[in-house]
Amino acid sequence: MCWVSWPAFSVFLALVFSEMLYVVGLGLSDEKDITLKGLEAVKGSERVYLEAYTSILTVGKEKLEEFYGKSVIIADREMVESESDAILANAGTVDVSFLVVGDPYGATTHTDLVIRARELHIPVQVIHNASIMNAVGACGLQLYNFGQTISIVFFTETWRPDSFYDRIKENKQYGLHTLCLLDIKVKEQSIENMARGRKIYEPPRYMTINQAAEQLLEIEENRGEGLCKPESLAIGCARIGTDTQKIVAGSLEELVDVDFGGPLHSLVLIGSKMHHMEADFVREFAVNKESFDLLVKKVEESG
Amino acid sequence: MCWVSWPAFSVFLALVFSEMLYVVGLGLSDEKDITLKGLEAVKGSERVYLEAYTSILTVGKEKLEEFYGKSVIIADREMVESESDAILANAGTVDVSFLVVGDPYGATTHTDLVIRARELHIPVQVIHNASIMNAVGACGLQLYNFGQTISIVFFTETWRPDSFYDRIKENKQYGLHTLCLLDIKVKEQSIENMARGRKIYEPPRYMTINQAAEQLLEIEENRGEGLCKPESLAIGCARIGTDTQKIVAGSLEELVDVDFGGPLHSLVLIGSKMHHMEADFVREFAVNKESFDLLVKKVEESG
Repeated sequence: MCWVSWPAFSVFLALVFSEMLYVVGLGLSDEKDITLKGLEAVKGSERVYLEAYTSILTVGKEKLEEFYGKSVIIADREMVESESDAILANAGTVDVSFLVVGDPYGATTHTDLVIRARELHIPVQVIHNASIMNAVGACGLQLYNFGQTISIVFFTETWRPDSFYDRIKENKQYGLHTLCLLDIKVKEQSIENMARGRKIYEPPRYMTINQAAEQLLEIEENRGEGLCKPESLAIGCARIGTDTQKIVAGSLEELVDVDFGGPLHSLVLIGSKMHHMEADFVREFAVNKESFDLLVKKVEESG
Repeated sequence: MCWVSWPAFSVFLALVFSEMLYVVGLGLSDEKDITLKGLEAVKGSERVYLEAYTSILTVGKEKLEEFYGKSVIIADREMVESESDAILANAGTVDVSFLVVGDPYGATTHTDLVIRARELHIPVQVIHNASIMNAVGACGLQLYNFGQTISIVFFTETWRPDSFYDRIKENKQYGLHTLCLLDIKVKEQSIENMARGRKIYEPPRYMTINQAAEQLLEIEENRGEGLCKPESLAIGCARIGTDTQKIVAGSLEELVDVDFGGPLHSLVLIGSKMHHMEADFVREFAVNKESFDLLVKKVEESG
């Protein structure tokens, strides 16, 4: 006869062996952007997972392993979404670290993992770090003048979604800036490989600022509401928080031709409420300071 | 006869002695939330300043000094705003670190310092970290569903500003959440001391979630547009990112009476676009799960 239910017993176990799931933000650049608290968690963990499909560092898994002195398991989307219990296995009795580029709450998936751990009565400690959501302040615009953040996905021949145009409209209506996160495709299968059930993956693809600007201009041509015109002001932000960070401000049309170098890229659409102090800061990043000043003047007049 | 202008010579100096101003984010909790990169910058700096008026850690200056093995100069608002050149003095020839709780781009003042350094041709490296702007994801709401961030200031007898009510309205119109940063008063002078020119300061004051909720309810009574009603859903977030983090969700009326403990506090107003996955996460923090469910249902029906 069973005198105690399994859920109750697992609560008991979790309380007695109060080990942890650490969800550790790695920040934006390399192995040294981890916090001291994060590094302590990693060093004390029996297993270390690295989430590797919503963002990337400038260094690979090997560099992290060398730096931590322990092996790192790459967790792809499939693993995190369908094998979360394997990641969490015995996290109530040993420490397990789940590493996330940026901040742990940047992507929905990590929230799911935290919820699942909670259900299993595994204590969770989140160790925060910088993410593009706050580091984008580097472009010179004030964070409190941003509206909602949008994601721009790769257009395909048959799928050219533009619902985020409405979000941009909502932000622009109140003069707010819009941070656009750009698509990342890792472990994609070609249609042929998918059809044949072959686990062969395409090389990763990261949307560039140029592509994002082009897609926005195409949407503008269709929608014609004047939000993403060739002369609309924007800021391309490449590799924010890294040594090779590149920030360039200009019209969307101008940004199409700027070489921003390797990933990750993101794009900021400037709202009409831009303060002159923001403009002063952003001006330093302008492709062309004279045309920037003219466009800012136009924004101020229209705003 | 002077054969080279001083600005040109200072550019030359800055290039030859390419030392740095490091603006280092400290994160949200204690001395161990600094990144390894940040700690290296601090250890290599000749002077280390700590900005101490827009936010606080859970540890004081002494703890930081002990941990860094060097002295830390407290930089108050007056110093940062009017003596930035003293902070930047010889930062072109030695390394200087300016420490900021959270992320360096969280407050306008730090942007000013970066602009001033740029004018003096001093290279600047910003070392990012978590700030409330991204760590607020801990409350269970998705960051991309937030609209613009607002600041709520302490009401006085004669000054009860409510312009942020319009910002809340803009966010709520599109179903977005609103992060409210709550006022901090450090180095305040009483009117008497100010009048007599006595540099005697009042103890620091940090607005509580309770006070913020009360002020919002008062504004609602005056404006009556239904944005911050007693039954409006919100989440109180105290000491996010620290060991004693406390998150409680409920109606504004309920939050008035919750004891959140010490600073820092912030408040999130929930928008009608809350996804059911967000609601599931937030529900765990509810003062009262049944009334929370009822209010969520009401929000869904109205949204």
